[in-house]
Amino acid sequence: MINKNMIKKGTNRSKIRELFEYGKILKAKAGEDSVFDFTLGNPSSKTPDIIKETLTSLLNENGVHLYTSAQGDESARNAICNTIKNRYGFKYNKNLIYITCGAASGLAITLKALISKKSDCVLTFKPYFPEYAVFSENAGAKFKAVNCNKNDFSIDFSDLKRKLTKNVQVVIINTPNNPSGAVYSEKDVIKLSKILNEKQQEFGHPIYLLTDEPYREIVFDGINIPFIPKYYDNTIVCYSYSKSLSISGERIGYIAVSEKCENYQDVYSACLGAGRCMGYVCAPSLFQKLIAKCSDELCDMSVYKDNRDILVENLTKFGFTCPSPKGAFYLFMKCPIDDANEFSDVAKELGLLLVPSNTFGLEGYVRIATCVEKRVVLNSLPAFEKLAKTYNLKG
Amino acid sequence: MINKNMIKKGTNRSKIRELFEYGKILKAKAGEDSVFDFTLGNPSSKTPDIIKETLTSLLNENGVHLYTSAQGDESARNAICNTIKNRYGFKYNKNLIYITCGAASGLAITLKALISKKSDCVLTFKPYFPEYAVFSENAGAKFKAVNCNKNDFSIDFSDLKRKLTKNVQVVIINTPNNPSGAVYSEKDVIKLSKILNEKQQEFGHPIYLLTDEPYREIVFDGINIPFIPKYYDNTIVCYSYSKSLSISGERIGYIAVSEKCENYQDVYSACLGAGRCMGYVCAPSLFQKLIAKCSDELCDMSVYKDNRDILVENLTKFGFTCPSPKGAFYLFMKCPIDDANEFSDVAKELGLLLVPSNTFGLEGYVRIATCVEKRVVLNSLPAFEKLAKTYNLKG
Repeated sequence: MINKNMIKKGTNRSKIRELFEYGKILKAKAGEDSVFDFTLGNPSSKTPDIIKETLTSLLNENGVHLYTSAQGDESARNAICNTIKNRYGFKYNKNLIYITCGAASGLAITLKALISKKSDCVLTFKPYFPEYAVFSENAGAKFKAVNCNKNDFSIDFSDLKRKLTKNVQVVIINTPNNPSGAVYSEKDVIKLSKILNEKQQEFGHPIYLLTDEPYREIVFDGINIPFIPKYYDNTIVCYSYSKSLSISGERIGYIAVSEKCENYQDVYSACLGAGRCMGYVCAPSLFQKLIAKCSDELCDMSVYKDNRDILVENLTKFGFTCPSPKGAFYLFMKCPIDDANEFSDVAKELGLLLVPSNTFGLEGYVRIATCVEKRVVLNSLPAFEKLAKTYNLKG
Repeated sequence: MINKNMIKKGTNRSKIRELFEYGKILKAKAGEDSVFDFTLGNPSSKTPDIIKETLTSLLNENGVHLYTSAQGDESARNAICNTIKNRYGFKYNKNLIYITCGAASGLAITLKALISKKSDCVLTFKPYFPEYAVFSENAGAKFKAVNCNKNDFSIDFSDLKRKLTKNVQVVIINTPNNPSGAVYSEKDVIKLSKILNEKQQEFGHPIYLLTDEPYREIVFDGINIPFIPKYYDNTIVCYSYSKSLSISGERIGYIAVSEKCENYQDVYSACLGAGRCMGYVCAPSLFQKLIAKCSDELCDMSVYKDNRDILVENLTKFGFTCPSPKGAFYLFMKCPIDDANEFSDVAKELGLLLVPSNTFGLEGYVRIATCVEKRVVLNSLPAFEKLAKTYNLKG
């Protein structure tokens, strides 16, 4: 009588988690230094000192641990609007900000708010974070993914036009992208916006663009990341402080609905309703109050760039094909064989834990999370070299 | 194209919230001291000092803010098992504890895990926390409530037998009860267990008893609260530290599945799966680590008893019918007229904010939350006396 689909969802934990658990066993057996765990997206940059200082001082305030309203502490919503205005020159109304338990809950909530029929469809872009499919199914929607250009993991617009049918109510975009690290160019964002606008008109209903933005501030090489709501009115932002402040476990982020959004008040109310239905009472109170004071802060992202540079240089030298991503903290390396699972298994034998790409809707790659200690990166190089030699690769 | 049901759920916020918002406006207009807000269940007992001390010291630990596993930090799960063993003499396996964002998320998750067909039904007891209906609907189940005995809000067992049909998969129990403060006696818990066991056998499927236990430790007059899993094997506990530690906004609690539960491994996996589908990545990390060290602590509950005693004595003296509850921090007072909404509106005019009982599935009562400053209770007495006189009540 138990829900079989839920048992499956709880048992078939992701390949990522499986590899991570394997790594723990291997470390216990073969020693900490013989395992190079590139599986998890748990930030390695230190949580900024100001976070600790602010939390310590907040602990002296009366009532800091009590319920806030469901939409979140007003001063935190105000701070969020100010940060976005200062960083991207875009204006939000604090009464359309909903503070959530991170971006994952924001996505699950927004999808449930926007999906109303079984025929409704959610579209995203390959490669993609696998939970998009899980959250879409939970909201009762079908789920499809658009192909990418294999050289830089940018959007394959002709495939987008094919798959953007009348049933598509929501499009999810994730830039900088997990798992590829790709940052969609301003040109591509404009192109996407144009297509969505045309299709909205053609279909006679809004197509909401849901942007999953936990990596928004992790960009390298001096590039500017386009702030999507500036380019497409029907955008809803799901943000998380997990990576920008290195507080991934604290579950704090927000849904931001702009006044340019069609039926913005209904969209916002439906998000509050969906959060309520799924048992979200409020986001963690202490961390809401932290955001009220620290939403402008950022942790030091240079460790991610350093790790990227060391790995891309050496992996390329060893003969692997591994483009240098412009953002996030992942590399997406081409496997020298078609079967990414087999390649991941071979790498595992050398202590290298790499996530096979079929988890992300794409065949033939592995994801390498660079949010590890620099020491792990440096020590892993001989193992990567050995792995290259296994496949007779030459730099 | 937005989900209309979600808009409704997000717009028709509870009567409780509505009254609370009215109170804020009234306070701004008529002054803080002329409004007696008995609407919200936000704990007024001070968060224990040990919580602040432990949090302060945890802030110095490395990685304290990072992701934990989905089921929760192992040392916290261990501590939870130890506390339950010491308090109630009941043994849990730490691998069947799922740390959640409070009891509300625990309930929403467990219901989604246990419901698999549209015809499935969730049963609870009047008066009840209104979100049970919302979470049941979210899980795709029908929802019914069993009548109570009006003198003490105990279970009406003959109505239970009528309503406990073959479609009932889950029964939700909440003792001490919100809104009535009733604590079900051991005799009644044994009787309930017997009926559920008979019906399970008759129907040929397990009936899971979901116990919502945020008020478990708030009991008065030296009574012992029966720990339900000791009496009925197919019990799943949803607990929250919101009230026991006065940290309601921090969203930390757990689901506990016992090894006596039928298909306990599947139940547990399905809960993990349901949590995953609804975007729960992990419970707030810092507070998980707090629980690892402080799960035995309790805040001072004497303020709730004092407030209860003052109010019950005086309300009775003024002529109201208001039984003295054995637990939680609510009084459930009989209205002198049939229409609780009308009575609540009349009380509102005197600055008394009382929640009408139809919100809780029962007509003709108001809920008075006693988790307020003692000063508010004392200052409210003249207004209650005036209210009694409006209806010509005599003590």
